[in-house]
Amino acid sequence: MFDGNFKKIRKVLEKYDAQFFLQYGTGFDANFYYATGFLLPDPALHIVGKSEDYLILHELEKERAKKESRVKKVLSLSETNFYEILKRCKDPKKALVKVYCQILRKLNAKKIIIPENFPSFISFQLNKEFEVEIVKNIFSEFRSIKTMYEIRKIKESCNAAIKALKYAIKLLKKKKMKCELLRNKIEEYLFKIGYIAENTIVSSGKNSADPHFIGKGKIHDHVVIDIFPKSKKHRYYADFTRTVIIRQNNELTEMLDAVIEAKNKGLSKLRNGTKAKEVHDTICDVLEEKGYETTRSKGKEGFIHSSGHGVGLEIHEEPRIFENEDILRKGMVVTIEPGLYYSKIGGVRIEDTVLIREKDCKILTPYPDLIKLEKDTLTTLP
Amino acid sequence: MFDGNFKKIRKVLEKYDAQFFLQYGTGFDANFYYATGFLLPDPALHIVGKSEDYLILHELEKERAKKESRVKKVLSLSETNFYEILKRCKDPKKALVKVYCQILRKLNAKKIIIPENFPSFISFQLNKEFEVEIVKNIFSEFRSIKTMYEIRKIKESCNAAIKALKYAIKLLKKKKMKCELLRNKIEEYLFKIGYIAENTIVSSGKNSADPHFIGKGKIHDHVVIDIFPKSKKHRYYADFTRTVIIRQNNELTEMLDAVIEAKNKGLSKLRNGTKAKEVHDTICDVLEEKGYETTRSKGKEGFIHSSGHGVGLEIHEEPRIFENEDILRKGMVVTIEPGLYYSKIGGVRIEDTVLIREKDCKILTPYPDLIKLEKDTLTTLP
Repeated sequence: MFDGNFKKIRKVLEKYDAQFFLQYGTGFDANFYYATGFLLPDPALHIVGKSEDYLILHELEKERAKKESRVKKVLSLSETNFYEILKRCKDPKKALVKVYCQILRKLNAKKIIIPENFPSFISFQLNKEFEVEIVKNIFSEFRSIKTMYEIRKIKESCNAAIKALKYAIKLLKKKKMKCELLRNKIEEYLFKIGYIAENTIVSSGKNSADPHFIGKGKIHDHVVIDIFPKSKKHRYYADFTRTVIIRQNNELTEMLDAVIEAKNKGLSKLRNGTKAKEVHDTICDVLEEKGYETTRSKGKEGFIHSSGHGVGLEIHEEPRIFENEDILRKGMVVTIEPGLYYSKIGGVRIEDTVLIREKDCKILTPYPDLIKLEKDTLTTLP
Repeated sequence: MFDGNFKKIRKVLEKYDAQFFLQYGTGFDANFYYATGFLLPDPALHIVGKSEDYLILHELEKERAKKESRVKKVLSLSETNFYEILKRCKDPKKALVKVYCQILRKLNAKKIIIPENFPSFISFQLNKEFEVEIVKNIFSEFRSIKTMYEIRKIKESCNAAIKALKYAIKLLKKKKMKCELLRNKIEEYLFKIGYIAENTIVSSGKNSADPHFIGKGKIHDHVVIDIFPKSKKHRYYADFTRTVIIRQNNELTEMLDAVIEAKNKGLSKLRNGTKAKEVHDTICDVLEEKGYETTRSKGKEGFIHSSGHGVGLEIHEEPRIFENEDILRKGMVVTIEPGLYYSKIGGVRIEDTVLIREKDCKILTPYPDLIKLEKDTLTTLP
């Protein structure tokens, strides 16, 4: 969570020569929640200045905002002339924007920076009165470096994901079941221990060649289980994938061995200052050396997604680990998740959530990479 | 779901003299999901013309989009020159916007309408090349009138909410428990039967005077239980509240009697063509006649929120039932939910989800209005 230390904010505002950063959203938007610490159900405007910030919201929320949020000044619409304007113009959105402009004028705003997703109904009007520049949400960059508190919370979610995988393996050992049922069982288990998991990927057979397909039908020779639970309490995610080999299948096992090697090589590159692209290249190198295609090699199948992403209040957040310019820093929590996907065979993937440290990384989802249910066939493998 | 009938869309576009409506989002945005029928995890652009529509998305999603979405033309970024532009400008957002502008130019766009929440990083650039007007999302208006399919799905969710309330009452009869535990039990129960409920309100004592506070601590003389589950399968919500009287308390019981009367008077006004404001006024009339304050009477306590809202793929959607100009129509599914809130006493609320018909409404959450746990005290009541 943002600690209320405005030094970092002042620096960004000075860089853009702006007086204010604005964001508009609810507490269910990660940046808004991170910045305000307030799980507000309906959207509100958050005005962030060099030394203080303002939340402009419905009077119904004011008392709770004063108690629960860390924002310095909370202003309710009934303390502005919103309701008078509304009576005249009859359009709540137009009345809101008028009030926002009034407040910004009073605060002597000249230049304002807004995030990329800032709603057009406000920005178009602001643009008529102020200088407006679109930037990355300043909190999304702050969020990429985790505090000790955040790392502890993400670790809790990682532990829950591991427990859920163990539970899934126990069920798979007991009896045959379809992807849909196993998904339900995993999600119910997580819910009971305080986590929401939706669209958990439990995918088998040729279906699993689509990395985003959540899976359905019979479980064949293998099953990809990708679990990304969010804590109901603290709202932090984990992201964790294992591919379970149910019955020996040489093609799938070779693919799985390759992605395991690629993941571990990728992990070995993680330290403060590494380029994201270097990690992605390392992973592509391993897979291409073994004869698999990657998007880098212009393949249409094979390794067709990025190598990883940040994890926190969102399941996908900064940084991205792909062919991009991001620099990985100490305190970032990211996934490393190579996969191989062929429409005629199916897909395999392995994924850990890890914390980047000064000289290495710490795996937050420690669990064996290779999982085979048929013990006997294990010994016959190379 | 949008049925692919473009007549309604053509009418709106002609009204604004525009060639295209745009929306940008993921399948988790209700309007986007409604319009495309596609649960896409990452954001994409949906271009809606007078007789056909286009989805521009990552190549990873293309095959699934062709199978699962109802959009007529699916275009992946790799079929555009996105990756070439990206190589030059290194900024994925800027490259995206360039590709979007190219496509719209090719489609001979002159004027474009965009919804209020459309992200500024696209709209600012569009505004340089095209005429751009901000409107209500055209699908949010379509969504307010439900199809038979949607009504059936919402009814399923209403049944789940009623079951969860029954389960909660059974637990309350068995033993004392805190708000937090009862909330967990309700949410676990719903999850098991296929519904996600988060931030279920289970609130008691003076805490319940804040209508949005989810509740904590001991359950005193009464408990407000506000359940709004979303189906994991079809994603439709229900919204349902009952106030359970645990121990006789004259002030709370009088307040509850008043909101029950107000709710039923409000329901009796619902038919095709009624003004939302008329329903809200009816409810305020009942409460004010009994000496309670309302926001209409400039009260700071008493009935301090709206009388209801549409329910569907979002928990709060069009129409709003307050001091506004919305006209209620046959086929709308709305809540009617008066409440009374006093900081020295606490709050009570009652809420049904109902379907508006030609001449009346049908309650989709039929359940007794008054619930008292102490049977003996029941008979001593007026």
